[in-house]
Amino acid sequence: MTVKKIDLNTSILANNEMWAKRNRELFDAEGIFAVNLMSSPGSGKTTILEKSLDYLTPQLKLGIIVGDIATTEDANRLKGQGAPVVQINTHGACHLDAQMISGALSSFNLKELDLLIVENVGNLVCPADFSFGEDLKVAVLSTPEGNDKVRKYPEMFRKSHAVLINKIDLISFVDFDLNRVEEDLKNLGSRAEIFPMAAKTGQGVDVWCQWLIRQVRKTG
Amino acid sequence: MTVKKIDLNTSILANNEMWAKRNRELFDAEGIFAVNLMSSPGSGKTTILEKSLDYLTPQLKLGIIVGDIATTEDANRLKGQGAPVVQINTHGACHLDAQMISGALSSFNLKELDLLIVENVGNLVCPADFSFGEDLKVAVLSTPEGNDKVRKYPEMFRKSHAVLINKIDLISFVDFDLNRVEEDLKNLGSRAEIFPMAAKTGQGVDVWCQWLIRQVRKTG
Repeated sequence: MTVKKIDLNTSILANNEMWAKRNRELFDAEGIFAVNLMSSPGSGKTTILEKSLDYLTPQLKLGIIVGDIATTEDANRLKGQGAPVVQINTHGACHLDAQMISGALSSFNLKELDLLIVENVGNLVCPADFSFGEDLKVAVLSTPEGNDKVRKYPEMFRKSHAVLINKIDLISFVDFDLNRVEEDLKNLGSRAEIFPMAAKTGQGVDVWCQWLIRQVRKTG
Repeated sequence: MTVKKIDLNTSILANNEMWAKRNRELFDAEGIFAVNLMSSPGSGKTTILEKSLDYLTPQLKLGIIVGDIATTEDANRLKGQGAPVVQINTHGACHLDAQMISGALSSFNLKELDLLIVENVGNLVCPADFSFGEDLKVAVLSTPEGNDKVRKYPEMFRKSHAVLINKIDLISFVDFDLNRVEEDLKNLGSRAEIFPMAAKTGQGVDVWCQWLIRQVRKTG
């Protein structure tokens, strides 16, 4: 069984890699910077996006893809904020793959986009294995989840270029030691930028957005 | 690609079903009641188990299996509390399957067990598809995750026999409406028992444990 599973995964991952390469070529041709935003369910990805759009849309032309197993609630929350939003319902699948993103790209006018942000399915495991051709992987970790998550879900955090520590306003009510998270990231060999924030109140969102804009401009 | 994926999943699920049936026969033969405890990362599964053992071990002979992608931290937290604990490291796999549980069962003296509790990998998606032959599926949802999770991860909540609403002590700091969760569960056709609790302080853990003990005795 173990061997069989590995074979199946290899074929699925190879297929994903092929679609990711196609997306990457398209992003390069159109000058689009792409971000894969990932976390556990309920870490605050959609709220971070809501608040980030206020900073990003005056400076960049954005497109948003939102992945969910069911409902269009996240897409509805993000509409009318100056960026086109496309919802992908995975109907049970635990992550977005590069082929799903490729399909969603046809809904955008790619010539007009500077930055594409993809909000992945809430899952700290599976999305880490499926790149879609993005420039940056960004992981969100909220303080109520606990500071053991970097150690317990190492693949996600090892691969992330930035880690947003959300719900920092709750830190005094939960056992969360930011130093421990920084130490665990170092132990994984990570050089990720760390951005503490409270997306609900807006605290810290500006610093993350300024950094993101710099990343887009560097490659643009 | 889609068709291929479905074929692969069918074969994996059929294999899991075969192992789940074997486990089920073993549980029946040995008079063991088995619980599958599932949630997002950081909802508080291990803390709930820590506090529940105080109520359960004086009345029942327990065994615990803990699933994690990496580390043995959860198992270490649970050791020395009157129940044998076995850690399964999935090395990247996003859920426990019935074959993994079968392998772990050989570490217990099954004749001595009344209740087996399996703490699954932190993931609100994949574990819902992989029964291991359990009597009860129990989902944990913590208030900081938000009250949209039942709608957004319907498969997990539709299949659960009990839902533990953890971190109820944080409810005034986060947007969480318990009535909305109850309504969403009804809309899914769920008849799950709902247990609000704050495992960190112990609030509500007794009510959940008394209910669980009744379930074990009913079938015993």
